[in-house]
Amino acid sequence: MKLYEQYPVSITNSLSGKKEVFKSLVPGYVGMYVCGPTVYNNAHLGNARTFLTFDIVSRYFRFLGYKVRYVRNITDVGHLVGDGDEGEDKIAKKARLEQLEPMEVVKHYTEDFHQVMRQMNILPPSIEPSATAHIIEQIDITKKLIEKGLAYEVNGSVYFNVKKYNQQHHYGILSGRNIEELMESGRDLDSQDEKKEKIDFALWKNASPEHIMRWPSPWGSGFPGWHIECTVMSTKYLGETFDIHGGGMDLKFPHHECEIAQATGANGKSPVNYWMHSNMLTVNGQKMSKSLGNSFLPAELFSGNHPLLERAYSPMTTRFFMLQSHYSSTLDFSNEALQAAEKGFKKLNAALLLAKQLVRNIETSATAQQEIPEWNNLVDACFKNMSDDFNTAKTLAVLFEMASRINDIKAGVVDVKKVKKESLQHFLNHYIGFMEDVLGLQEESQGNTDALAGAMQVLIELRKKARADRNYALSDKIRDDLKANGIQLKDGKDGEMTYELD
Amino acid sequence: MKLYEQYPVSITNSLSGKKEVFKSLVPGYVGMYVCGPTVYNNAHLGNARTFLTFDIVSRYFRFLGYKVRYVRNITDVGHLVGDGDEGEDKIAKKARLEQLEPMEVVKHYTEDFHQVMRQMNILPPSIEPSATAHIIEQIDITKKLIEKGLAYEVNGSVYFNVKKYNQQHHYGILSGRNIEELMESGRDLDSQDEKKEKIDFALWKNASPEHIMRWPSPWGSGFPGWHIECTVMSTKYLGETFDIHGGGMDLKFPHHECEIAQATGANGKSPVNYWMHSNMLTVNGQKMSKSLGNSFLPAELFSGNHPLLERAYSPMTTRFFMLQSHYSSTLDFSNEALQAAEKGFKKLNAALLLAKQLVRNIETSATAQQEIPEWNNLVDACFKNMSDDFNTAKTLAVLFEMASRINDIKAGVVDVKKVKKESLQHFLNHYIGFMEDVLGLQEESQGNTDALAGAMQVLIELRKKARADRNYALSDKIRDDLKANGIQLKDGKDGEMTYELD
Repeated sequence: MKLYEQYPVSITNSLSGKKEVFKSLVPGYVGMYVCGPTVYNNAHLGNARTFLTFDIVSRYFRFLGYKVRYVRNITDVGHLVGDGDEGEDKIAKKARLEQLEPMEVVKHYTEDFHQVMRQMNILPPSIEPSATAHIIEQIDITKKLIEKGLAYEVNGSVYFNVKKYNQQHHYGILSGRNIEELMESGRDLDSQDEKKEKIDFALWKNASPEHIMRWPSPWGSGFPGWHIECTVMSTKYLGETFDIHGGGMDLKFPHHECEIAQATGANGKSPVNYWMHSNMLTVNGQKMSKSLGNSFLPAELFSGNHPLLERAYSPMTTRFFMLQSHYSSTLDFSNEALQAAEKGFKKLNAALLLAKQLVRNIETSATAQQEIPEWNNLVDACFKNMSDDFNTAKTLAVLFEMASRINDIKAGVVDVKKVKKESLQHFLNHYIGFMEDVLGLQEESQGNTDALAGAMQVLIELRKKARADRNYALSDKIRDDLKANGIQLKDGKDGEMTYELD
Repeated sequence: MKLYEQYPVSITNSLSGKKEVFKSLVPGYVGMYVCGPTVYNNAHLGNARTFLTFDIVSRYFRFLGYKVRYVRNITDVGHLVGDGDEGEDKIAKKARLEQLEPMEVVKHYTEDFHQVMRQMNILPPSIEPSATAHIIEQIDITKKLIEKGLAYEVNGSVYFNVKKYNQQHHYGILSGRNIEELMESGRDLDSQDEKKEKIDFALWKNASPEHIMRWPSPWGSGFPGWHIECTVMSTKYLGETFDIHGGGMDLKFPHHECEIAQATGANGKSPVNYWMHSNMLTVNGQKMSKSLGNSFLPAELFSGNHPLLERAYSPMTTRFFMLQSHYSSTLDFSNEALQAAEKGFKKLNAALLLAKQLVRNIETSATAQQEIPEWNNLVDACFKNMSDDFNTAKTLAVLFEMASRINDIKAGVVDVKKVKKESLQHFLNHYIGFMEDVLGLQEESQGNTDALAGAMQVLIELRKKARADRNYALSDKIRDDLKANGIQLKDGKDGEMTYELD
């Protein structure tokens, strides 16, 4: 029996609003598409959470034995300022402001994005297609939609006819929006709009003469709309219907609703069996947003360089912190919560190092036959929690239990000599597997970081001793010499000392 | 006067075979295109050397104050097995063998390539376009060449007519090949060839039914030829004529020769002012090649995991090693040479750490007026060597001289109290700048490594003082506490102390 048969996964499907048992289209294979970033500015924390969510999904499916094709795109054209059909292209605007070629903007922020992904141990997808690499396919499907009467051309732009589509299908099926209300609310907004209805959306936009990013098309020179790229890239690499489509909650409407309409209109079938949406971030209980001044970048979180942050939090602490909440809940950032996460992660990580040592070194007796039922139950609980809509929060709670049992082994509470070798290995290897392979929790660049922490520990002890001895000359010398070497010692109220690198 | 005016760069232009003074098309700006990897297998060391060469070129231009747009492509379609017009697409073949979507192959090996680049501190280019993202532009230029009578269609494929082109232009201008000889030698090779002359090359290839990577075109479904992508991507982002085109020596013919023919044929002007080619690798004097069994991957070099390698050599040792030869010379790998390079790099790196400490800490007198002419001469020599066709080998020789002078400062041979502050800073900052910014030589994971070295310096000083005071209890405590933290202090004969991590 395969692991994925033993622990069938259930997913909260945004399409039904219900938790459903996952059945892949092809047994043993999973096809998953996730909307990637628009690369016109630094990756933000919301991105990081979304891509962490689907990193976990793909990791766990692989852990269960599925072969996963995970497609996550790069949006490098077509996403307009304001997320609608008007205004400048986000990337073209940035290029104009920074006096760069748009593709220089794309490269710069793609690099930044990839760096954040690496820092947080978010694995690359199987395919990372970009919108500009699929212009031909986007033109093709637009032609098809015109032929089917579901799209119309005006002044070199092509729009999707939502009302027409809704006569045969259901626009609003994902978001629950009501098309009549949507049409009503948009009616008197902009009389100059060339669209038949405000609710219609662009498949192709005519390029104004100063627009740098443009390609020839049957409707003249232009560029694709924002929604069509995802329809094209998902179905090109995963088929006309595929298993899972994911993204941030904010993309549900209109982006994902439009994707469903485009694909269903063009191919006559629903494109996605399971829709998954990860929830938003808050800071001290308030929505995280640039305009509120309470948003910080991953790099700021990792360096501590932001007024809201008391100090730096490592990428792994951040990862652990995010996994403490279920992906469908909002996630609230605060210094207290991050510091608690740091402690929690350290505890699990210490047990991870210990588990690895034990697996390598512990000698069990060949004749020992004892099984420890609790160990098996804990491993079983990890699978069940992860299979229950990828519940990382509950899985972490089980891992804390397992960490205590691992410490028991070290402390000699359990006499491992009596325990069956396979039982011990099963327990320890699953702890390591859930930590590293499933949750992706592993310490960053161990070597020098650990050594630095060790050397600083020795220095801090020496300095504390010097102070206790009222040897202020020595205490000051240590502080000053460290400062000369780019290390800032900080004295806490309680006599504790911490350090920061300049 | 700008630095690039003060130290004009000369380049050995493969087009003339001569060293020429570089004049950019737009003052202060440099446009450079380099042929990137075909991502169907792991990046090999030859790639690494080529991209290191042009990393240095772009770094030095920037150091001189130029604004550089550096375009390096990813070949993800069109490069056929055997590098000619017959045989399977390299990526499609790999996809078939590994049962993957071609774009999964592309993503996998692009990741590998980028990892090697990061390890070796080779900076990303400004734009990294891919062939599949420029199908439309490749079709456009092919149409243009047909219109101009320089290309013809046969059975859904389009070929460049070399003979016809050569009537107006000069095919062989870069490689020095003689077109008559080339036509003679190819005449009787393959009677089934649909090309008019063996020397003609594909701009567009008709896709056989089982071919996965295919796009619609005026000539039916197909895919672009290998040479046309570089013509399209270089001129799209850099203009019809641009400053520098680089690549490995093996690409000179036919790839670069064909690029010149395509661009000149389409646009009526020569595309590139300066062609630069980096030379090949040898191992113990023999050409490095898979079939000889003497080729190893960067990952194997960094891990030491190859029968020819006595042990591992770090990415920075490798980088330093490669920079010891001029890019236009062959470069011979041997364990002896790599071990010598390791020592050399350590020496320069130690002086780099020292220079950084000195810049931060040394107190000079405000009234000191002494200049040290040798220091200025050394800095001047660095610029002159680098401006002389990017001679990294000679620049390294000067940096060794500078490293000795920096050690002199530390040793008190020079009384810095008498030296003008600006003079000292000029010298030290240029050493740091040429090491880190120009040659990109810096210890991996700098931050914590520097800090660790600093913290250990403070501890070593404390321990020396404890010994001098005959406070052996303290001296031992420092040693023992460090050991408990995984750091081994070693006492040298001369009272010097070094450390190693467990």
